[in-house]
Amino acid sequence: MTTNLLDGERIDDLGCKGYRIIQNKKKFCFGMDAVLLANFANVKEGGNVLDLGTGTGIVPILMEAKTTANHLVGLEIQPESADMARRSVALNHLEEKIDIVDGDICHVDQLFPKTSFDVVTSNPPYMIGTHGLKSENESKNIARHEMLCTFDDVARAASQMLKNQGAFYLVHRPFRLAELFATLQQHHLEPKRMRLVHPYVDAEPNMVLIEARKGGNPRLTIEAPLIVYESSGAYTEELLGLYQND
Amino acid sequence: MTTNLLDGERIDDLGCKGYRIIQNKKKFCFGMDAVLLANFANVKEGGNVLDLGTGTGIVPILMEAKTTANHLVGLEIQPESADMARRSVALNHLEEKIDIVDGDICHVDQLFPKTSFDVVTSNPPYMIGTHGLKSENESKNIARHEMLCTFDDVARAASQMLKNQGAFYLVHRPFRLAELFATLQQHHLEPKRMRLVHPYVDAEPNMVLIEARKGGNPRLTIEAPLIVYESSGAYTEELLGLYQND
Repeated sequence: MTTNLLDGERIDDLGCKGYRIIQNKKKFCFGMDAVLLANFANVKEGGNVLDLGTGTGIVPILMEAKTTANHLVGLEIQPESADMARRSVALNHLEEKIDIVDGDICHVDQLFPKTSFDVVTSNPPYMIGTHGLKSENESKNIARHEMLCTFDDVARAASQMLKNQGAFYLVHRPFRLAELFATLQQHHLEPKRMRLVHPYVDAEPNMVLIEARKGGNPRLTIEAPLIVYESSGAYTEELLGLYQND
Repeated sequence: MTTNLLDGERIDDLGCKGYRIIQNKKKFCFGMDAVLLANFANVKEGGNVLDLGTGTGIVPILMEAKTTANHLVGLEIQPESADMARRSVALNHLEEKIDIVDGDICHVDQLFPKTSFDVVTSNPPYMIGTHGLKSENESKNIARHEMLCTFDDVARAASQMLKNQGAFYLVHRPFRLAELFATLQQHHLEPKRMRLVHPYVDAEPNMVLIEARKGGNPRLTIEAPLIVYESSGAYTEELLGLYQND
């Protein structure tokens, strides 16, 4: 089939059910964090999923491949990203399974009925405000920095959208862990499962994966560390397994 | 020298500056958690330290060997444990450096002036209330279960005793991490550094070491995982190093 590509766009293979994705190097390309998040999340059979700040649509597309979700929605505030995500959904013939919706996380309650999702996912901006702002690219800045929404906004939106006992899956930076836990708990999202991602076994983690449950009881399971590279610099067996799912 | 040993007591070598400790198998013997806590804690030169619930006195004795602390106090509610700790201090000729004080964590503000310590340490009871209570031994139960003090009591006491920007070091169970962070923050103790202890690299952690700073700014450093055993079952090099400091 022919796919309309805009200037600077390219199609990448996802190594998973033959799925592909449209990306634009000048805007924002998905990273390992999105892949790890999609692998960390579980969806019960027939469950529906909302991805807050979906960008290229990578998380719902991978989760369609990797989970038993019935329907997935990706919410995106940047119209160009949403358009690109929508074209990726069409490229993979997933129009019946995945909706890409233009809209603002801060007003999610005006877009969807409250407590209507089994699972919410998010790979939110990691950096506080404009701290350490480096890129002159507005699109990348919005994806990386809390310019248009804070983590409090994201957690509030997740809590509003989730059914009772529904699960919120997120990936974030470990240096904010104490604040993440506090904010989640303020929104009745109890941290239940966590995994730290370390580049090497003897290195500090650079990502944290968290599952929080709406109305859950306090008891956290911390999993074995996820190690990305062997000391040789090659991917670990587990990491390779996450990227090669066919 | 001769040391008075009571029925069931024995003297163990600490493998560190020739120090030894009196323990009683029927009561409570120190575990790896105390050793890891003493190694995790830092004390600036000349600093003073309060150990909340010191038991056999293992934490102040090891910290005397491993840090540049000027003076250390161990607080213990069980008179028999306090007496044993005091005899261990004498056994190592540390009476000038370490005081063992009988008393209750819940009333620590009646024992010491407020904001008078640079560092507070604690290896508190891990289990909530009498949940999973197994031992018929009252002394072990008090050390393991929150019978006489909760974590909220411990954090409050640490906050009362610490100077501004003073450090609280603790070891606890990972399943309570979200609650630990929330309770610390309620008492103005900001989590600044954390290390998870995993029996094996591919296993869930069974201990967490936390450094919180009174009045600190939010930003957490999570360190590389501390792995106890190689897959062969032998101690890892790092663990051996912690036990053999001479």
